[in-house]
Amino acid sequence: MQSLGVIVEYNPFHNGHLFHLEQSKHTTDPDVVIAVMSGQFLQRGEPALVSKWTRTKMALTNGVDIVVELPYAFATQKAEVFANGSISILSALKCTNVCFGSEQGNIGDFERTTIIMEEQKPLYDLLVKEFINKGYSFPKASSLAFQQLMDGRENVLDLTKPNNILGYHYVKSIREQKSEISAFTIGRTNAGYHDPEFNDSPIASATSIRKHLFDHDGDIEKVQRFVPKPTYELLNRYIKQTGSFHQWEDYFSLLKFRILCSTSSELSEIYEVEEGIEHRLQQIIKESHSFLEFMTKLKTKRYTWTRLQRICTHILTNTKKETMHRVMTQSHSEYVRLLGMSRKGQAYLREIKKELEIPLLSKISGFDSQMLEMDVRATNTYAMKFSEPTRSNWMLQEFSKPPIRFDEVENKFL
Amino acid sequence: MQSLGVIVEYNPFHNGHLFHLEQSKHTTDPDVVIAVMSGQFLQRGEPALVSKWTRTKMALTNGVDIVVELPYAFATQKAEVFANGSISILSALKCTNVCFGSEQGNIGDFERTTIIMEEQKPLYDLLVKEFINKGYSFPKASSLAFQQLMDGRENVLDLTKPNNILGYHYVKSIREQKSEISAFTIGRTNAGYHDPEFNDSPIASATSIRKHLFDHDGDIEKVQRFVPKPTYELLNRYIKQTGSFHQWEDYFSLLKFRILCSTSSELSEIYEVEEGIEHRLQQIIKESHSFLEFMTKLKTKRYTWTRLQRICTHILTNTKKETMHRVMTQSHSEYVRLLGMSRKGQAYLREIKKELEIPLLSKISGFDSQMLEMDVRATNTYAMKFSEPTRSNWMLQEFSKPPIRFDEVENKFL
Repeated sequence: MQSLGVIVEYNPFHNGHLFHLEQSKHTTDPDVVIAVMSGQFLQRGEPALVSKWTRTKMALTNGVDIVVELPYAFATQKAEVFANGSISILSALKCTNVCFGSEQGNIGDFERTTIIMEEQKPLYDLLVKEFINKGYSFPKASSLAFQQLMDGRENVLDLTKPNNILGYHYVKSIREQKSEISAFTIGRTNAGYHDPEFNDSPIASATSIRKHLFDHDGDIEKVQRFVPKPTYELLNRYIKQTGSFHQWEDYFSLLKFRILCSTSSELSEIYEVEEGIEHRLQQIIKESHSFLEFMTKLKTKRYTWTRLQRICTHILTNTKKETMHRVMTQSHSEYVRLLGMSRKGQAYLREIKKELEIPLLSKISGFDSQMLEMDVRATNTYAMKFSEPTRSNWMLQEFSKPPIRFDEVENKFL
Repeated sequence: MQSLGVIVEYNPFHNGHLFHLEQSKHTTDPDVVIAVMSGQFLQRGEPALVSKWTRTKMALTNGVDIVVELPYAFATQKAEVFANGSISILSALKCTNVCFGSEQGNIGDFERTTIIMEEQKPLYDLLVKEFINKGYSFPKASSLAFQQLMDGRENVLDLTKPNNILGYHYVKSIREQKSEISAFTIGRTNAGYHDPEFNDSPIASATSIRKHLFDHDGDIEKVQRFVPKPTYELLNRYIKQTGSFHQWEDYFSLLKFRILCSTSSELSEIYEVEEGIEHRLQQIIKESHSFLEFMTKLKTKRYTWTRLQRICTHILTNTKKETMHRVMTQSHSEYVRLLGMSRKGQAYLREIKKELEIPLLSKISGFDSQMLEMDVRATNTYAMKFSEPTRSNWMLQEFSKPPIRFDEVENKFL
């Protein structure tokens, strides 16, 4: 039995995602498709446009059979940790294949590069350190070190490309975890990852779709041609039910509250708050009236926008270094949290259930785990943009809501 | 030179306060009147109706010459600590007399009772412990122990009365601090301290005034006859500038955020969070849609409403046990924070300035103190009910705003 794993954020699910999903199925011919999806906060350190439940529905109505949550402990992290968590969950679910999009488009290049990097690791680490000492950010230093190491070699990865970086870490995680998953990749031919503008193609980046939604105050009509019909309907319903999509600005006052009502020493206990940045955070947020203003003032060469956003996310959700280090000692997920499934997905889970080595959680009450507590705090934080009683209902739902069930034959939710 | 000290909250300043102030002046014939006033959060563990700056103006326009802030570390505490801090500040300011309102109305009874209590302390402590073991709250147990101890004695205090309790602690603090302040008291003849309803008298309790303001959505006309004209005008201006008065409900969502995005062990580090109440807080707030609902569900025989409100205040402002214990080792204030002064007040301060043993702060920037940091956090928290840019402006003002100056001859602010 062939099962295809995809690692996604679906923020929101658009035509490009559908295209990738179709191609991945075509390449691997799976019996079942499993998506590991980030929860309420994403890899770039920002709240998802819509909740994980709505994004689960988007996935199910577009041909995914099982949606499970990538825990906060992995989802809001740099590529290496993000990949480790994702692959560990797909392995736990007995996934046979994983397929990711990449600029490179050739899986051989990923495998070759991974092996070279394994062999050259000491040299690579040295080079990264040198570039960081020259004042480069960690991602930039990694990329420069990599380029230097690969200089003159053929058929190796271009790791200046964001999807190649992620893919590299998927392949590396598979090797390191001695997972039996086979990796596939599909070339990304569409516009740049973060291209903010629309063009004539029916495929637009998620970034440009979100940008349009926020620039036009939730007016979703213009994004209709870039998203599958179910996504359009789900976005429509979300905006009708909750009033607006989620963005950092919605949480800026809470962030300010956290930063200004903590001592700098308390702030320095937060995960990723390093090198005395707590003092700059406290100084700059005092005079900032919006998240954009805050980030713009905060940005330096050394700190990427993404890294700063992740720091802010961890402050917002009160994620401490100590807790993160404790839950990450094993570097793989302690559980698989099921968000939704089709009939086919349900049958698959029934079949593999006995072989699972970590708990499969349909409901989370009763399961005691610090990793899971982080997910709960992420939802509590995410719900803070609503007023009562919606806010409380969302917080309670996190414990009581069963996985979403979708009948793919009848094309309806159960 | 005679200086009169009063210990106040002025929440808001009303005719009863004016009456007490006039009587106190009549009794002690002072050259200058000094008020030690709670800041943004009050002794009963709640946000003040209006900011400390507006309440300072109320005091100055009604005959107070100097208004200084009672630091958060004392202001949000039980009577004993509240009194200790207040008396330490009045002593620091070379105050000769203090005058407080009490149900008893006879200073001899306070002095007699204080001496008896000093002599009988071991027995009293034992009795309190016994009543607490029987399930009574600390205030109730204290009161019962006291009654038993005083049984049969004449001319001693009735410590079931709230103003007698405060007065008792003022007199006790004066003795313990070996302060040279002379204590006076004035009988309170008006309605009960917390009487919620209006009657025919021009004097209504602050509780009833606040209740009216909140029940009628900030409509202040009906409270006009219970407050001096400047108070009325200041309340009017406040509501026009900020939109509403402050109450716990404004901060409920932040409290929820704090409680649900902390682990129970983090909550137990907060000052006054004891005996495992952190678990009840987390459980009950999940299902509460308002502060009133939360408090009503939380209330038990053992925990008074006030104690619970104080716990909530400390959670909101992130006041830790460790920090509080550290700043309280000396049990008196580290500074005197000047909020406002009349011309006469200014002259007085100029005169005593050289004799001051703790710093007199006109602006707080540059003064490094954990006790003062608590006041800053209290203002940051208090300002969270506003939206930007008001919120940021208030937070910055805490550092930049000079004391309010009032010309009592011309009857105008300078």
